[in-house]
Amino acid sequence: MSEEKKAGAGLRGQSAGETALCTVGKEGTGLTYRGYDVRDLAASCQFEEVAYLLLYGELPGRAALDAYKRRLRERRELPPAAKAVLEQIPADAHPMDVMRTGCSMLGTLETEESFAEQSEVADRLLAVLPSIITYWYRYSHDGVRIDTATDDDSIGGHFLHLLHGAPPNALHEAVMNVSLILYAEHEFNASTFTARVCASTLSDMHSAITGAIGTLRGPLHGGANEAAMAMLERWSSPEEARAGLQGMFERKEKVMGFGHAIYKEVDPRNAVIKEWSRKLAEEVGDTALFPVSEAVEQVMWDEKGLFANADFYHASAYRFMGIPTKLFTPIFVMSRHSGWAAHVMEQRAKNRIIRPSADYVGHELRPVPPIDER
Amino acid sequence: MSEEKKAGAGLRGQSAGETALCTVGKEGTGLTYRGYDVRDLAASCQFEEVAYLLLYGELPGRAALDAYKRRLRERRELPPAAKAVLEQIPADAHPMDVMRTGCSMLGTLETEESFAEQSEVADRLLAVLPSIITYWYRYSHDGVRIDTATDDDSIGGHFLHLLHGAPPNALHEAVMNVSLILYAEHEFNASTFTARVCASTLSDMHSAITGAIGTLRGPLHGGANEAAMAMLERWSSPEEARAGLQGMFERKEKVMGFGHAIYKEVDPRNAVIKEWSRKLAEEVGDTALFPVSEAVEQVMWDEKGLFANADFYHASAYRFMGIPTKLFTPIFVMSRHSGWAAHVMEQRAKNRIIRPSADYVGHELRPVPPIDER
Repeated sequence: MSEEKKAGAGLRGQSAGETALCTVGKEGTGLTYRGYDVRDLAASCQFEEVAYLLLYGELPGRAALDAYKRRLRERRELPPAAKAVLEQIPADAHPMDVMRTGCSMLGTLETEESFAEQSEVADRLLAVLPSIITYWYRYSHDGVRIDTATDDDSIGGHFLHLLHGAPPNALHEAVMNVSLILYAEHEFNASTFTARVCASTLSDMHSAITGAIGTLRGPLHGGANEAAMAMLERWSSPEEARAGLQGMFERKEKVMGFGHAIYKEVDPRNAVIKEWSRKLAEEVGDTALFPVSEAVEQVMWDEKGLFANADFYHASAYRFMGIPTKLFTPIFVMSRHSGWAAHVMEQRAKNRIIRPSADYVGHELRPVPPIDER
Repeated sequence: MSEEKKAGAGLRGQSAGETALCTVGKEGTGLTYRGYDVRDLAASCQFEEVAYLLLYGELPGRAALDAYKRRLRERRELPPAAKAVLEQIPADAHPMDVMRTGCSMLGTLETEESFAEQSEVADRLLAVLPSIITYWYRYSHDGVRIDTATDDDSIGGHFLHLLHGAPPNALHEAVMNVSLILYAEHEFNASTFTARVCASTLSDMHSAITGAIGTLRGPLHGGANEAAMAMLERWSSPEEARAGLQGMFERKEKVMGFGHAIYKEVDPRNAVIKEWSRKLAEEVGDTALFPVSEAVEQVMWDEKGLFANADFYHASAYRFMGIPTKLFTPIFVMSRHSGWAAHVMEQRAKNRIIRPSADYVGHELRPVPPIDER
């Protein structure tokens, strides 16, 4: 490989370390977490089992899972100082900035003093991230101070309960569960890599997760399902969608939710979330958004050879559950935190500071001119 | 290079992109910012000139410098909501957590809505970071709400003024100026690399800087001058220092402030800050800390062949100016922000998302066992 090709190429294809957490795009499997196919996990597990798998190494037995879910339920409350901070953030703030600030603030109050506390901090954040975003959202948008200490069984149920002010039905809780499993882990993606670079200086867990949230915020990473939603809601029928897409093709606009940097033929998560989105469409009696989504998927495949990725049907699924579009990426955070924290622990277990080199393309050595001669 | 050697090696020696900002460890120069030797810059420039050089590409003429310093002076005030947040952070919080949270909170209030605002956001943070740390410090430690909008000429003077409640003398302002120049930029170090990974998803400036602060927080990166200070203050004479060091050698304890991952023979910044620390020692009539520091430097060279790096004499210099040890790393942030922000802009100008690969060392594909069979 030539130097020129490597420079600026975003480390594509270069190994930045080892992981036992995940494979992406391996032939015949697509996506595995610690050796389990994500489709199998989504079909038979609770998200809390998957988080436990990532953070503790193996799937829990029934007693261990019950204990873990109890542990998480007990950690949903926000300290008063964190609530006071969230109340200072305006309603028009970017929700990912809220997640980033809430996580960082919690680090000032519940600082990880040594790595012996890493599991405690990881579990606490897993439990409390839904509280952070919904506390801010309900306060800034509805003017209410919610009690985030619910006894909902699952993390997904807890989130929907806080958001809507009532416990979700079984279907919605099941869809949230699957969604959180699908987004939980994805190898050395940019936000996870940020968490590992941060962790490699032996910094604390809150710093690593805060940095990862800020990285996921970028439109090239998180946010594709929000962009897909913004596109889909412009069309009220498959015919409109097909015509609208032709216009986008002509104007060379990017259609979000399709293709993938690593998957080349199919995103294994798409078929899973698509079927759940279909069930939700049936439940609400939808006759527009789901057919529009299917029409877009078909056109993109027929005309561009591009497959729908995990984000595409998440847009309609979340919409059918009444989730505001701007909270889509924060849900990604609630899920991916499990992967990020597991990567931080893995980095710490066999650490060397991540410090690459750069190719210098600037001025040769030069003398400093006196200020009046510049 | 074997696969085994590469894995987990922290990307050492692997190029992660191009930069025109800095060279580190090039023969005959040591450290350059945009082609200027850092020793020349420290000898004849103000930190604001150096920040301008990094952020805008060239050293400013006199009129441009005056305008830039005015611009920065006008941006020192904190919004009420940011003050309210800083007041919620307890006195025993880690000061880097305060910097991280203050920067993140500012991002919710003064969000970078497009890259056209990047210089505005970078300058604003350059001006306001000293206000963030001192506002919190004085409120949490002394119970006073300080006015951060001073008309001090320099960033270093502004910081010392807010910290001590009175404008600094000329010597202290000069030392702060040199210190901020020496720490401003250092190529693809871990915190800068975090900022670039974050920026590569096209996220916002506050996210990138917040992530960089969290990465600098780690003891393998920032914090070496704090650790050096903690060691030095245990000894009251060169004799005690020499005996104490022998004990550390026997217990195989790491002596902080010596050697460097990239410099192999000398850290070009050391001689500069050492002479300023000597001047400060003379000013305060010190007869312990500076001689102790020199004794440690001599022993480390004679017995270990290790040279003092930039951090070592920063410890005594900061102490002579009455700066609390726990604020040493936040000063690093005030300085390095100029380099971080310049790297964010450089990354954006020729972006590709930074997404390396990983070597998988985990389980082969396996079926999910039913929960009662685990």
